[in-house]
Amino acid sequence: MSRRYAVLGTGAVGGFYGARLQRAGAEVHFLARSDYEQIARAGLRVQSPEGDFHLSDVRVYRQATAMPPCDVVLVALKTTQNALLAELLPPALKPGGTVVLLQNGMGSEQQVAAIVDKETPILGGLTFICANKIGPGLVQHIDYGIVTLGAYAHDEAALGVTAPMAAVAADLQTAGIPVQLAEDLQLARWSKLIWNIPFNGLSVLLEAKTDELMSDPATAELAKELMEEVVAGALACGRRIPEDFIDKMLDHTRRMQPYRTSMKLDYEQGRELELEAIYATPLRTARAAGFEMVRVGVLYRQLQFLDGRQRA
Amino acid sequence: MSRRYAVLGTGAVGGFYGARLQRAGAEVHFLARSDYEQIARAGLRVQSPEGDFHLSDVRVYRQATAMPPCDVVLVALKTTQNALLAELLPPALKPGGTVVLLQNGMGSEQQVAAIVDKETPILGGLTFICANKIGPGLVQHIDYGIVTLGAYAHDEAALGVTAPMAAVAADLQTAGIPVQLAEDLQLARWSKLIWNIPFNGLSVLLEAKTDELMSDPATAELAKELMEEVVAGALACGRRIPEDFIDKMLDHTRRMQPYRTSMKLDYEQGRELELEAIYATPLRTARAAGFEMVRVGVLYRQLQFLDGRQRA
Repeated sequence: MSRRYAVLGTGAVGGFYGARLQRAGAEVHFLARSDYEQIARAGLRVQSPEGDFHLSDVRVYRQATAMPPCDVVLVALKTTQNALLAELLPPALKPGGTVVLLQNGMGSEQQVAAIVDKETPILGGLTFICANKIGPGLVQHIDYGIVTLGAYAHDEAALGVTAPMAAVAADLQTAGIPVQLAEDLQLARWSKLIWNIPFNGLSVLLEAKTDELMSDPATAELAKELMEEVVAGALACGRRIPEDFIDKMLDHTRRMQPYRTSMKLDYEQGRELELEAIYATPLRTARAAGFEMVRVGVLYRQLQFLDGRQRA
Repeated sequence: MSRRYAVLGTGAVGGFYGARLQRAGAEVHFLARSDYEQIARAGLRVQSPEGDFHLSDVRVYRQATAMPPCDVVLVALKTTQNALLAELLPPALKPGGTVVLLQNGMGSEQQVAAIVDKETPILGGLTFICANKIGPGLVQHIDYGIVTLGAYAHDEAALGVTAPMAAVAADLQTAGIPVQLAEDLQLARWSKLIWNIPFNGLSVLLEAKTDELMSDPATAELAKELMEEVVAGALACGRRIPEDFIDKMLDHTRRMQPYRTSMKLDYEQGRELELEAIYATPLRTARAAGFEMVRVGVLYRQLQFLDGRQRA
């Protein structure tokens, strides 16, 4: 692999994908804060059903300004940290390099677009992965791992498959990561929100895993109604989700292992919730297109209360 | 006081109003279950800022069939117990007697109408009181106590001030209870729901007292939106709530002492929640009139989940 990678945020997601790329031969530079000492001394470990491995020699940095400019920057911060991007991103990005946002929700590409120059390719990378950071420099990969890549356009039009997208996809595939190419990033973002909006919020509000929410008729129905509302929001923004998508997602959720969503994990661990990316931005985007997602708004306000109280 | 009273359900509400009537000279017969032994042996005690008192000699029954027929039956069960009314009510009610429902929510009068004969006057008694049963036969009255009385019509029309209503009001006033006469019971029920729907539900879902909900801008706004939805539901049912009502209620809530709602107390004590009376019936009633209370429906489904899990 000839492209040099930077990983901003060496948590479960950044640690997993960055380590897999390095194991496959890429030159990878990791920005880490809390885990810096441990990674500098002992490297990165990944436990995974696809094979445990240990990278003893890891290029790790405490400051972005110390990083070399890279061909591809993988942003794997929580979206709640995106205010740091203006400082972290420019030093790590080579002129002509590509930014890939491995982040939840909606709105991150727009934030990056305001920082980098107009020609910089910005890709959304929607990850579907169960992974946790279970110790300093130690990632436990539990299941899945596919990344959906899509290219961001300033006018938010569908760009199809671009050259930078194909290049990053090739590297991920070389590292054994399944990749899906989305011709329309916004459609991919809305599609992922259809699941994240009901299940992230309800899992926090009702202290429940996915299986409990699906086995109660009241919350199974509520999840479906919330999904329908997000589909209508997407449609107002010109993104048509196929009719059978909701049933497929519900069916999939019913059959998957009991799952604590990422927002539930964040809440349990006292971290700020990703409300801006997963709720506020989609609500605002649909509203600007003339559609009010009323039920989603109820969840958003309830979650704001819980998040505010927890961080008070 | 010449009218003989029965009290079905000697909890905080039944205990308080029944004891005040007896203290003022009425003949009162109490149906009690868990507290029967204690009340039979040691009577009823009320602690109150309006004066503590003790009734040592209380007519208390374990079975409704043992009660004498009474002129007025005060129903002070939780609405979750209303399936018992078909059995409890007829023995306690004298032919020509009046039923008064000291209950939350909507739909109880209709349930009673299906049990008693067509001529029986049915009154709704909406209580605004802070009182708890803090031990067997021991009621702690904290604040307020006003009762709003309204007469039920089979076609749900406004009946104005009826003779049975005036008679019960006179007895309550003799017992030192402030009374308000509602010319339109359904309007009174909707008006009370405007507060109960947001604050009962949110207090349970967010484990919060009224002051916390009002001091957070997100939940203060959500409470207001829920209130607006209930006002619209009432309007669909032909009940016009005055325009400044919501602001008055919010202002009142902001200035009142931090308050755990009755539903929050029920939830904390593992009791079934009054979801049918406070959520399901109003939702159904508005829907039948052509209006869907969407936000209220979200709360209802969330509460069903919590209630179901707690009682599983």
